[in-house]
Amino acid sequence: MTDKVIIAIDAMGGDHGPDITVPAAIEALKRHPNLTLILVGQEEVLQPVVDKDAGKYRKRLQVQHASQVVMMDEPPSQALRGKKDSSMRVAINLVKDGVAQACVSAGNTGALMATSRFVLKTLPGIDRPAICTTLPTMKGHVHVLDLGANVDSSSDNLLEFAAMGSVLTSAVDEISQPTIGLLNVGEEEIKGNEVVKEAARKLSVSKLNYYGFVEGDDIYKGTTDVVVCDGFVGNVMLKTTEGVAKMISFYMKQEFKRNPLNMIAGAIALPVLRAFRKRIDPREYNGASLVGLNGIVVKSHGNADAHSFCTAIEEAVLEVEKNVPERIKQVLETMLMEGVEV
Amino acid sequence: MTDKVIIAIDAMGGDHGPDITVPAAIEALKRHPNLTLILVGQEEVLQPVVDKDAGKYRKRLQVQHASQVVMMDEPPSQALRGKKDSSMRVAINLVKDGVAQACVSAGNTGALMATSRFVLKTLPGIDRPAICTTLPTMKGHVHVLDLGANVDSSSDNLLEFAAMGSVLTSAVDEISQPTIGLLNVGEEEIKGNEVVKEAARKLSVSKLNYYGFVEGDDIYKGTTDVVVCDGFVGNVMLKTTEGVAKMISFYMKQEFKRNPLNMIAGAIALPVLRAFRKRIDPREYNGASLVGLNGIVVKSHGNADAHSFCTAIEEAVLEVEKNVPERIKQVLETMLMEGVEV
Repeated sequence: MTDKVIIAIDAMGGDHGPDITVPAAIEALKRHPNLTLILVGQEEVLQPVVDKDAGKYRKRLQVQHASQVVMMDEPPSQALRGKKDSSMRVAINLVKDGVAQACVSAGNTGALMATSRFVLKTLPGIDRPAICTTLPTMKGHVHVLDLGANVDSSSDNLLEFAAMGSVLTSAVDEISQPTIGLLNVGEEEIKGNEVVKEAARKLSVSKLNYYGFVEGDDIYKGTTDVVVCDGFVGNVMLKTTEGVAKMISFYMKQEFKRNPLNMIAGAIALPVLRAFRKRIDPREYNGASLVGLNGIVVKSHGNADAHSFCTAIEEAVLEVEKNVPERIKQVLETMLMEGVEV
Repeated sequence: MTDKVIIAIDAMGGDHGPDITVPAAIEALKRHPNLTLILVGQEEVLQPVVDKDAGKYRKRLQVQHASQVVMMDEPPSQALRGKKDSSMRVAINLVKDGVAQACVSAGNTGALMATSRFVLKTLPGIDRPAICTTLPTMKGHVHVLDLGANVDSSSDNLLEFAAMGSVLTSAVDEISQPTIGLLNVGEEEIKGNEVVKEAARKLSVSKLNYYGFVEGDDIYKGTTDVVVCDGFVGNVMLKTTEGVAKMISFYMKQEFKRNPLNMIAGAIALPVLRAFRKRIDPREYNGASLVGLNGIVVKSHGNADAHSFCTAIEEAVLEVEKNVPERIKQVLETMLMEGVEV
């Protein structure tokens, strides 16, 4: 792909703001010659850093002033009403106005979702947008949604998530009919609550490639290409994953430091452990998509480092190149026109 | 504790039945001189194994015949109605009749819960029993409930889980006021669905040591002594944990086998990796408690090995010695008498 891609970066968002977003932007520009980035935020903070560090990439690295910053713990409604000139809002406005094709933020998730929904609106036929991320599996990777945008999903919402997850996966992974698993507490039909049972009935008569119920461990087994769940469940699943991985790493480090002999063994095993770590490095999977909107919005983890934030920018580049929102819109329209439930 | 403890074992339950349950029983008898076990199941299968392997423990290892076996995928209602002479049912009957003080099964979870509830009944003031397990954390361990008995918990159910988890943890860990975390998608008060928000309000005015909302990663950080959640969420959390741990182990093994140099590094690191593994070995945490019943029922993982099943038996021994159901009953009665919501 050599078409020009322009992406707006909420440069003030996240735990570290410009310290991370600016180096990440420069790294993304190095990797993608067709990319132009617009850093949105306080000009007096951003411009000096760009002048100092951007070097030959300065031509493709613009700064757009925005006077306010949304705090990480700020209620979404307050950010939406009170911070109309925040770096987040201005970055999303650039997408709405067609100046940028996507926006990336490591800011407050609730505020990002609320603002994106307010500014960009949802695609026709979508009741609620969802947050979708990629996770590593034993077979490759999986797309999981929703991860916390919707904490009381109906069976129709789950169906929409399935449709959006299917299109996104199909586009970015180039799979024609991704398999869809519905997260449940067992694989048997009698298991689960009424919402998942009803969603299963609807999915099984849809045109999607519905696999059936999957359980928590199926996510990492790579049983299906897409896993669909309510946002409450998905958020707990994602945070649990982080927690388990951190605990395992904590105990392993502790064991390798227990005594001099263990430290030697650790030093010898280090290159292998590093290579292993790279395989499932969460930084390589940074960048959750807010799907179901009239535009591309990618959410980075709040405490992402520059490498990780760059991955989120690359997710946005991919979604622009693959034209994801337009494809979701087309699939939904086709399904609605045919009078078939998605 | 030297008081005699008698426990009934559903010897036919689980993926491996007597191949696992009998050696596990013998191991438990070795470790606990005050313990007597009743193996429940097909006498013609069990008696020869006992005669052959039990040796000097034979006096404390009885066999109680039961003609039927509940299948792992059998619907609970079918097991309950159609298999009145199953090893599971007879083992639970022994608890009801006061012959045994607890029962341990690796069988079908749904059938075990349904049968236990039908035979033993719930404690006064308990609407729904819950499944509670211990998980390792960076600080020690945590008790989490519910893990799948209730897939549509109300705020009152969550409150009951909190009370039961508090008493169980207090009894087995000897902590006077265990801290209680309510699993949610964020720590702020505005986060979550209506059920958890209402449960939080009720918990904050209860006599329990309520900490507040916790997130998925807090489970493994060891933020609180007890974590309370709906059974759907808890089950996904538990299975996700299994999945992540297996995937990490899978990639680590793969990396250590990649080439001869890595294999040498692996051989050197092996003792350390083994010691590390032992720290968070899921087999050491086997044995989930069905709490809220008039009696002690412990559920082992279906595919537990003998070592792991023995851990589940030991959990039952501990609960007998600490008199857990009676303590739950007393706490609930006191709370109800005082007119204070638990």
